[in-house]
Amino acid sequence: MSKTDRRNLPVNADRIAEDIDALAKITEPDHPWTRRAFSPLFLEGRAYIEARMKAAGLETRIDAGGNLIGRRAGLKPGLGTILVGSHSDTVPDGGRFDGIAGTISALEVARALKDQNIELDHDLEIVDFLAEEVSIFGVSCIGSRGMTGQLPEAWLSRTSGDRNLAQGIAEVGGDPSILLQQKRPDLAGFLELHIEQGPILEAEHKDVGIVTAIAGITRIEITVEGRADHAGTTPMGRRADALVAAAQLVLDIRNAATELAKTPGHFAATVGEFRIEPNAANVVPSKVVLLIDGRAEIRSDMESFIAWVDEAVQKVATAYGVTIKPPVRVSDNFPTPGNAGLLETLERACDRVGAQHRRMASGAGHDTAWIAKVAPAAMIFVPCKDGRSHSADEWAENDDIAMGAAVLFEAVREMDKTLQTKA
Amino acid sequence: MSKTDRRNLPVNADRIAEDIDALAKITEPDHPWTRRAFSPLFLEGRAYIEARMKAAGLETRIDAGGNLIGRRAGLKPGLGTILVGSHSDTVPDGGRFDGIAGTISALEVARALKDQNIELDHDLEIVDFLAEEVSIFGVSCIGSRGMTGQLPEAWLSRTSGDRNLAQGIAEVGGDPSILLQQKRPDLAGFLELHIEQGPILEAEHKDVGIVTAIAGITRIEITVEGRADHAGTTPMGRRADALVAAAQLVLDIRNAATELAKTPGHFAATVGEFRIEPNAANVVPSKVVLLIDGRAEIRSDMESFIAWVDEAVQKVATAYGVTIKPPVRVSDNFPTPGNAGLLETLERACDRVGAQHRRMASGAGHDTAWIAKVAPAAMIFVPCKDGRSHSADEWAENDDIAMGAAVLFEAVREMDKTLQTKA
Repeated sequence: MSKTDRRNLPVNADRIAEDIDALAKITEPDHPWTRRAFSPLFLEGRAYIEARMKAAGLETRIDAGGNLIGRRAGLKPGLGTILVGSHSDTVPDGGRFDGIAGTISALEVARALKDQNIELDHDLEIVDFLAEEVSIFGVSCIGSRGMTGQLPEAWLSRTSGDRNLAQGIAEVGGDPSILLQQKRPDLAGFLELHIEQGPILEAEHKDVGIVTAIAGITRIEITVEGRADHAGTTPMGRRADALVAAAQLVLDIRNAATELAKTPGHFAATVGEFRIEPNAANVVPSKVVLLIDGRAEIRSDMESFIAWVDEAVQKVATAYGVTIKPPVRVSDNFPTPGNAGLLETLERACDRVGAQHRRMASGAGHDTAWIAKVAPAAMIFVPCKDGRSHSADEWAENDDIAMGAAVLFEAVREMDKTLQTKA
Repeated sequence: MSKTDRRNLPVNADRIAEDIDALAKITEPDHPWTRRAFSPLFLEGRAYIEARMKAAGLETRIDAGGNLIGRRAGLKPGLGTILVGSHSDTVPDGGRFDGIAGTISALEVARALKDQNIELDHDLEIVDFLAEEVSIFGVSCIGSRGMTGQLPEAWLSRTSGDRNLAQGIAEVGGDPSILLQQKRPDLAGFLELHIEQGPILEAEHKDVGIVTAIAGITRIEITVEGRADHAGTTPMGRRADALVAAAQLVLDIRNAATELAKTPGHFAATVGEFRIEPNAANVVPSKVVLLIDGRAEIRSDMESFIAWVDEAVQKVATAYGVTIKPPVRVSDNFPTPGNAGLLETLERACDRVGAQHRRMASGAGHDTAWIAKVAPAAMIFVPCKDGRSHSADEWAENDDIAMGAAVLFEAVREMDKTLQTKA
């Protein structure tokens, strides 16, 4: 399907572009595009989205978790709710499309249904989740966790400046007092559209990625301890250089991850944090602390990797005369598979609108992972330029977003039929 | 020679111990042993040394460079000055012996001459150089540069707090207004004793190291530029990971230095400073800046290394898909050989007092390197425990220091004879 044919989609691409552009203008002027959760700009962005929801005939509310929801009642009360959406908050200095593309595409589904006078049996809710990105409170996916009773109670007292998270949620209109009881048993299914944040769809000229799983994220901290010696006087052969040993580990980790990435299922491992002590020109480094970020679509890959790391550090310690304590698993989240039925629904939807698609994992975390704990959930990716995200360079073609919105539209229509037969 | 025989040395070991212990007590109480140049404690330490110089019959003064000098006139005016000494300032949290051992050993030479009623033909000066260590003004060897007209004029306006270096020198009694004219054409020869700050003498059970050269120090900064990608979503094969490339460089640098260290002449290279950007758990590192500290006794070794680095970075850049600009030579000082005649004098002195000795290079910089630009100069090392220095763990046995002081004593006596025949 050529780009020009996209004018025949069941959604209005221009309307999507208009909304994304309007939200892009609601940014810290010197830091495009920045609209961080809990900021006045964030509330300004939400006011825009809420107005557009109302214009689409949706009944709006803020739920206990601080999520902005636009509701359209279905023909069969009690059948359950089909939820579609993403988030409108951004990281600092980035995020023109990350989250926003999915929120506006979901809104466009509701508008397209209205335009075409299509009534659903299910209730339909369009959601803008609160604070998907790591916010000023240092944690992420606050709204999707909050909606589903998965927000750790201790998080509510996390502070930023003179506010705690409970106050932050209350300020955006949520109700932290009942937050821990939220479950949403009415959810019949959830869909999210998101930019890929990776280079695969663009490289393979695909329109849509059907997300088989959201990778588990495991973070492992390694501390390498050597000996601080005089860099001028200590012979090369008599050193316990923590940086040299850590450099070997960085290469070994990259090679091990590259091998695991060759087997089925997404796998990646990155040393993203790395600091040395004493970090002085004339002193042999005595200590390195590094953090591995591992992502696995298949849990057994991560388990192999964790076991490999435990062995690898001992080999490096022996080879380089340094001490490495057993690696510390700072966090360890399992992969979240997409709902099998919904993945098929999404593939059929792609076929109906003529979208070239492929199955793929999400290496990044998303609100979908939290909704999937309580309801059938799945997500799709649309291409983004050079795989860039969380940066001012982040870019997605509006035609590609519109194609994704059309897939959501078709999938929601099918879900409205299939989910009730299964219920 | 066993340790017990050292009581028969021509110097008084107990007197050396007494002075070193007394200076150790003049320290920041919570940071043993800290007596940084330009501090009140430093002046307190100097007051102690000056009193001891006077007690040894020396005429004391502070020269224009802020050096404390104790003078003993020779029998033949105009023959020139034999200078012996080191420094009494310390780095923070270290330095019980670094500099102090040499200053007190020099003082002990003067005392031993007095005790034994030995008059020299040359004038003898015992010196405590100002601020050998990197001071609060960010530079080192202020006194030895200042004494010899080698202090860069621009340094005088370097600031720390509300003082500049010129004011700092004036406060300790120096005269910055005439500093740039200092040359000391009267210097007939200079000797310095210092702890090795390395592990070789201890490991080889040697008493004294005869320092063939003070290694040149070359610092090279390398900036590795990759691409900040999402650590979860970017496939392993599509990354430009600056940390992975820099890790390869760290290993390559260590291996190249290890090879050069196997050839004659001391060589070492250390990556001591290393920082990554953005240093975030979920972002592929986009940038690493690292600093190589290279030390070479033989200049051609350093030239080979510099040429190797230039090639190595290009190989790594190609192999890992990153960009590395041509390495920047931040500083580049040539090696300073010890005076050949004085090295032989020192070896004969060792043989006379029964000190086991070996020739070796100094990987660290010393005041001797600056005095050597204007006069015959050489230095000796005494062993230190585990090669540790610039740390509270720094330790040297008093018997070893006394043996070194005896070598200075014998060498000064020979210099007094040989230098006048050559003059």
